[in-house]
Amino acid sequence: MTAGGHVIALCGGVGGAKLAFGLARLLAPGELTIVVNTGDDFEHLGLSVSPDIDTVLYTLAGLSDRKRGWGLAGETWNFLAALGRLGGETWFALGDHDLATHVERTRRLAAGESLSAVTAAFAQALGLLHPIVPMTDGRLRTIIESEEGDLPFQHYFARARCEPVARGVRFELAEDAVQSAGFRAALERDDLAAVILCPSNPYLSIDPILALPGVRARLEAIEAPIVAVSPIIGGKALKGPAAKLMAELGVTPGVLAVAEHYRGLLAGLVIDRVDRTEAAALRGRGVEPLVARSVMKGDEDRIRLARETLAFAAALAPDPRRRKAS
Amino acid sequence: MTAGGHVIALCGGVGGAKLAFGLARLLAPGELTIVVNTGDDFEHLGLSVSPDIDTVLYTLAGLSDRKRGWGLAGETWNFLAALGRLGGETWFALGDHDLATHVERTRRLAAGESLSAVTAAFAQALGLLHPIVPMTDGRLRTIIESEEGDLPFQHYFARARCEPVARGVRFELAEDAVQSAGFRAALERDDLAAVILCPSNPYLSIDPILALPGVRARLEAIEAPIVAVSPIIGGKALKGPAAKLMAELGVTPGVLAVAEHYRGLLAGLVIDRVDRTEAAALRGRGVEPLVARSVMKGDEDRIRLARETLAFAAALAPDPRRRKAS
Repeated sequence: MTAGGHVIALCGGVGGAKLAFGLARLLAPGELTIVVNTGDDFEHLGLSVSPDIDTVLYTLAGLSDRKRGWGLAGETWNFLAALGRLGGETWFALGDHDLATHVERTRRLAAGESLSAVTAAFAQALGLLHPIVPMTDGRLRTIIESEEGDLPFQHYFARARCEPVARGVRFELAEDAVQSAGFRAALERDDLAAVILCPSNPYLSIDPILALPGVRARLEAIEAPIVAVSPIIGGKALKGPAAKLMAELGVTPGVLAVAEHYRGLLAGLVIDRVDRTEAAALRGRGVEPLVARSVMKGDEDRIRLARETLAFAAALAPDPRRRKAS
Repeated sequence: MTAGGHVIALCGGVGGAKLAFGLARLLAPGELTIVVNTGDDFEHLGLSVSPDIDTVLYTLAGLSDRKRGWGLAGETWNFLAALGRLGGETWFALGDHDLATHVERTRRLAAGESLSAVTAAFAQALGLLHPIVPMTDGRLRTIIESEEGDLPFQHYFARARCEPVARGVRFELAEDAVQSAGFRAALERDDLAAVILCPSNPYLSIDPILALPGVRARLEAIEAPIVAVSPIIGGKALKGPAAKLMAELGVTPGVLAVAEHYRGLLAGLVIDRVDRTEAAALRGRGVEPLVARSVMKGDEDRIRLARETLAFAAALAPDPRRRKAS
């Protein structure tokens, strides 16, 4: 399959990574750039942890644990047990294999490598050929404004298990929070065929990417269609706090809310069959729907959904003759 | 058993830790200070590793692997395997449990705690009551001057497996390489009953401690007897490169060489039965020998050797009446 140009996938963790896996199986390495959220990144025990990047790396390398839904298959937890014995902080689950990623990343960052360079090196070591780029080499941090006060993402997500009621989400941008070179280069390509917003949490995984200076304006300007795959199915998130968060923010969780959230960007939205009754309403809001089986259980589901999403985007692309004339 | 005063044990890794274990079983926490070599400490993968401190902690806590002779019992190596997969450095064996010690130590040091404070916290977490103090909170690094150039200790010991031919050993002292507060306080006690040089490598484990400013002068000045337990048995080291190193430095490995090495300090030297023929020669050099079974295979051996060493030191103590008169 060819996309007739370059495809950018904006991606968070688990759900997004599954679609990215499918895209990577269908497109040549030169046809796809996977841009990953780093708003969840944090320093823990002195280690630089990049949860979404790691999930994408592990998923594409076929190393992720499918049953547990996160982390590495065959993971062991002896480090964490020993850390607990020493009185250390054990609320963030760091597996023994996973830890190697964090230790080696931290070492390389301390040696002056960029997060992009470290991620590329890891991808290469794991045999991955498609570019996986952090959204930024700088520092953007997702903060959950909750009834218990402002919480850095992992304190909300992992330590507090998403229990605090959210009142808002904001992104703390450092001065160096600019698009990574790989992301920028992909956005500036003149052969862009599609931008795909993977089925990741719109508020917590995709919004941080859109919050980087210049990204939203660039996405609004490009001719290539922007297509999202809804992470909300039947009013619920398959995984993670998306639906709970939407409700707390006063939004009825559903595919219409996803479309509304991405207003001004989306040409199309891939929705699950259980949400097919919303197709007309989406169309009424100027967003073309594609009804699909969007729960990805195995590799075949991932590849099929990726194929349908790519075909959907291709169908939404502006008429090439018109494009040439413009 | 009581030592009739305070006992200081100077200690390196495996062999020394075994005797320290015996001493800790016999003496009350207030009667013993275990001072541990930190000349082997190094930064690896961005982590602060203190091999001898950890060996002492693990050994006293009953957590060390007796069969392998180092590290933790029940250790797993998944971190190291995953690190290798990422292209990281795997020449230093970091077990999954052991790693918790290094990560947590590094975190605490970065937060401003001293190595003494971190070590005390770990000892407490592991249920150890006897003070285990690093020789210094500063930086002294053991360098092996080898035919392949100068090698930091772990590069010689772990990476090069002690294969390079040594020409000398030197200690790089930073300005802050002064006795730790715990070591200094122990040395200055007026109830010192004995200083025991544990059966650790004289050149690589005990000499770094003696190289700290003021330590040797203080040891030469104290009245309490200094007693060593020879790490050389029948011309060989039970473990590690002591005998190889001595030969390369032009010294015939043996108990006489150990006594000679510690000249000016030793009142007595505990030697194994296989070396009993050297007893007279030792006495001729002004060092009282004690012939013992000095191979420590189980806890009973450790405790027995510690008991015999303490009794030996007590017998070598200056006559208290004479001491009072002086």
